[in-house]
Amino acid sequence: MQKLKNTLQAIKPTDKTYETKLQEKLDNLTKPLGSLGRLEELAKKYGTIKATVKPAMAKKQIYTFAGDHGIADNGVSLFPKDVTPQMIFNFLRGGGGVNVLARHVNAEIRVVDVGTDFDFKGEAKLIDKKIAYGTKDFSKGPAMTREEAVAALEAGIDVAEKAWEEGADIVGTGDMGIGNTTPSSAITSFITGCDPERVTGRGTGIDNKVLSHKISLIKKGISINSPDKNDPMDVLAKLGGFEIAAIAGFILGAAARKIPVVIDGFISSTGALIAHELNPTITDYVFASHKSVEIGHSTILARLGITPVLDLDMRLGEGTGACLAISIIEAGIKILNEMATFKEAGVSEA
Amino acid sequence: MQKLKNTLQAIKPTDKTYETKLQEKLDNLTKPLGSLGRLEELAKKYGTIKATVKPAMAKKQIYTFAGDHGIADNGVSLFPKDVTPQMIFNFLRGGGGVNVLARHVNAEIRVVDVGTDFDFKGEAKLIDKKIAYGTKDFSKGPAMTREEAVAALEAGIDVAEKAWEEGADIVGTGDMGIGNTTPSSAITSFITGCDPERVTGRGTGIDNKVLSHKISLIKKGISINSPDKNDPMDVLAKLGGFEIAAIAGFILGAAARKIPVVIDGFISSTGALIAHELNPTITDYVFASHKSVEIGHSTILARLGITPVLDLDMRLGEGTGACLAISIIEAGIKILNEMATFKEAGVSEA
Repeated sequence: MQKLKNTLQAIKPTDKTYETKLQEKLDNLTKPLGSLGRLEELAKKYGTIKATVKPAMAKKQIYTFAGDHGIADNGVSLFPKDVTPQMIFNFLRGGGGVNVLARHVNAEIRVVDVGTDFDFKGEAKLIDKKIAYGTKDFSKGPAMTREEAVAALEAGIDVAEKAWEEGADIVGTGDMGIGNTTPSSAITSFITGCDPERVTGRGTGIDNKVLSHKISLIKKGISINSPDKNDPMDVLAKLGGFEIAAIAGFILGAAARKIPVVIDGFISSTGALIAHELNPTITDYVFASHKSVEIGHSTILARLGITPVLDLDMRLGEGTGACLAISIIEAGIKILNEMATFKEAGVSEA
Repeated sequence: MQKLKNTLQAIKPTDKTYETKLQEKLDNLTKPLGSLGRLEELAKKYGTIKATVKPAMAKKQIYTFAGDHGIADNGVSLFPKDVTPQMIFNFLRGGGGVNVLARHVNAEIRVVDVGTDFDFKGEAKLIDKKIAYGTKDFSKGPAMTREEAVAALEAGIDVAEKAWEEGADIVGTGDMGIGNTTPSSAITSFITGCDPERVTGRGTGIDNKVLSHKISLIKKGISINSPDKNDPMDVLAKLGGFEIAAIAGFILGAAARKIPVVIDGFISSTGALIAHELNPTITDYVFASHKSVEIGHSTILARLGITPVLDLDMRLGEGTGACLAISIIEAGIKILNEMATFKEAGVSEA
């Protein structure tokens, strides 16, 4: 609990005077004012986080957090629970979607086991932060104890510390966990006050019947657990998941260390929503990678007040969206650092 | 004229049976069906063009076509006409926005002079396809003769042939030419039948007064020249620009050689609109990189029936949007070629 408290206290707003300095630099480059749109905006946010007009982006890392979910026993996913560890082995061998896209954008990928229902027996390439072998079924009672939720969140902070020690310039989040859109929709519904119908989607591709069942489980879970709206840790413990908690902690830890953090899709954004409830200043450090097909995602991004970089009809998770967005942010940084000024190029100004 | 005729005849629809084969391959990869959204769609289109389920994307090239415009003498841009050659030198030295983004996505960039009002005196790195020293003011009479327009278009076909000879796997278009949003809006208005007010934007950032002037010049130009709606070459000659004509030809040439071609923003899309009027089959080979801030752009893309990959509030042109989109298309190709199948990874299917 002390680690969480310290981290929350360490998060400070960015120095907004850099926004002006960065815009001045951008305005001297050989292009009409503002004509690179969001590339300029992303470069400005990144440079403001780094507190420099010439920010580096050498080391890029994606962290994919994994956990299993008791709620999955109710058949809310098209895939069996075994797929969580199977996909982790796929990631460790480099065959997952997130591996392909991380390679494409020259980012390292790390997989973190926070709460899968599988014993990886010291698998060397996996970061072992296991708190338990999956959550309990939240439609019947709390998914986690409060202690477990805090431990998972602090595990995420630990991982952010590790990224900082390794010198990560930017990090992206990702998730793996069969069934994890269900707790994400539950948390999103409860925190934002939107009806479950409006924030619950088809996950892996379920049909109308299963979708109805999923929504009724979410309603039951919220009703049975009656979380405390003023206590985000209570909401997280009762409705959440280990990977969602760790992602929340990871975002807090990254913000505390002033590392720009790119959130992936719906699950990662649910983690960001929890982090935001704990400390709204995180948004100074957070980039939203893309707009997911999952209908609850836009609700979260509106709450955080962050516009996604991409909209490619994706809904895979894992960190796939974060990879692609990191490359667009990097494009903005290169514009800032490499484009010629009017003076350097001898180009007449407007 | 013979080159244009031959090229138009050489453009054949892609073999759509590859779409099914490619979707089958995508559906065997370790992810929920369709969960990579537009990455899958882009990979499918690219593979269908290449007529293979394992398409390569090794050699990426951006072609930036440059021309000057008589209409610019009426003050429709914030920048003086000198900026066209100044920016070309900037491109040749690697300092332009398109250079930075081409490097970012590992694409080569080529600059083509089709009709600038400047003598580059055999500048080695520039592709010299100059037809004339700028167009005439289309608010007073035809911008080009029909012969000039055909020559510029065929110059674009030549450049596409060159890209094919060099083994380009994918090409992107770009433009440079002070004042070139004005002819683009004129062509877009005339071909689509939309009022000039609805397809004329602020270009480099002009104010309301200059915008009104720009619109009135477009109306005057259309009225004075009264192009033949059934003759795209007449529209192009009377209202167009050398770089717009060359981009149209380049797209036709790429389609004839089955090279996927990524169009940049408003100017490039105006070239695509002309190419589409000449042969609508080009859309089988064309990707739209991004949705420009220029208000006429969406009108063209709707006419072509192509959804842009990105929406980043950009309006620089040069090929900047094409660079970024090429990287997203490449991500889709890598997904297709590098992701593990359920069988390979031992992952249970839905």
